[in-house]
Amino acid sequence: MINEFIKPVELAKSYRLINHGPTVLVSSAHNGIQNVMAAAWNMGLDFSPAKVAVVIDKSTLTRELVEASGTFALNVPSRAIAKLVLDVGHKSGREFASKKLDALNVPHFAGTAIQAPLIDGCVAWLECKLIPEPHIQKTYDLFLGEVIAAHADTRVFENGHWKYDANTPEELQTLHYVAGNTFLTVGAAFNA
Amino acid sequence: MINEFIKPVELAKSYRLINHGPTVLVSSAHNGIQNVMAAAWNMGLDFSPAKVAVVIDKSTLTRELVEASGTFALNVPSRAIAKLVLDVGHKSGREFASKKLDALNVPHFAGTAIQAPLIDGCVAWLECKLIPEPHIQKTYDLFLGEVIAAHADTRVFENGHWKYDANTPEELQTLHYVAGNTFLTVGAAFNA
Repeated sequence: MINEFIKPVELAKSYRLINHGPTVLVSSAHNGIQNVMAAAWNMGLDFSPAKVAVVIDKSTLTRELVEASGTFALNVPSRAIAKLVLDVGHKSGREFASKKLDALNVPHFAGTAIQAPLIDGCVAWLECKLIPEPHIQKTYDLFLGEVIAAHADTRVFENGHWKYDANTPEELQTLHYVAGNTFLTVGAAFNA
Repeated sequence: MINEFIKPVELAKSYRLINHGPTVLVSSAHNGIQNVMAAAWNMGLDFSPAKVAVVIDKSTLTRELVEASGTFALNVPSRAIAKLVLDVGHKSGREFASKKLDALNVPHFAGTAIQAPLIDGCVAWLECKLIPEPHIQKTYDLFLGEVIAAHADTRVFENGHWKYDANTPEELQTLHYVAGNTFLTVGAAFNA
């Protein structure tokens, strides 16, 4: 892993990495082509085996790579790379001759289970195997995946829990997309 | 509507009510029986017509009412009712002889398009018509809906945008479920 803070997350707890509704980056790779896009529309789908759902538009290069490779990663970006999330979200890999990561200087590292690059500057990563459901892929752009490896930054997620509090550095907060170039960030955790 | 702050939201902008990943309450009604449950696993699915996706477990009374009525509402709760969200999330309507709203004193009011009750103490509401997809309902507990009416509290959502800033009263923040009785709340918006 790219730094000492990143540790594996138990698969049965991996849903918690997106349970609070962050915008994610969807990364993918096939035949040497890598890509990444932003997706506010993602959610957990099951605990065990851990599953997720994400919307991937027909027009995207990511869609092509996910369908061809049968894999994708969800990366949970932090405020440190908010600007990059917007760039990645606004521009298609097709504009860069399928070399978006290079063109936009997206820092990345290798995962442990799939070929998709994992994006640096994120605080959690879910490596997923596509669960093929052609009807909903075609009709709703809706993709399901089984989580086969997961990792998180222990500065903010440890022992199956997010640790956000008043002392968490702002740059490690997750991003929750509103519209335009506006995000909300998470505040401190509280017990109801 | 139950108070003067609640105004209609343009359907094409209604996805923004859940775009930032709040935990929602799913309310439903059929043949005079009403129910409500909590669901962290929800997301937008399309802009126009506006669609949403939500996971509704097989064991729930809500599931039965949604399938029978073909409708459901997503209610976006605020911190003011965080304790109620936990109660509603931990106890099935079946434990209360299908009278969960009465038993747990869940304040509610009538919607404009469907029979499902809208929950007071929320800051946004999406009234939805089920898009029947029996295979994914049965296999993944995954339900899709078209938004046919939407409303929001203008103190926090207006002109298609959330207005969270440092001055927003804490009790109007949305809830982002972690685990146990712990939530994260949203902080101020920022522009990347």
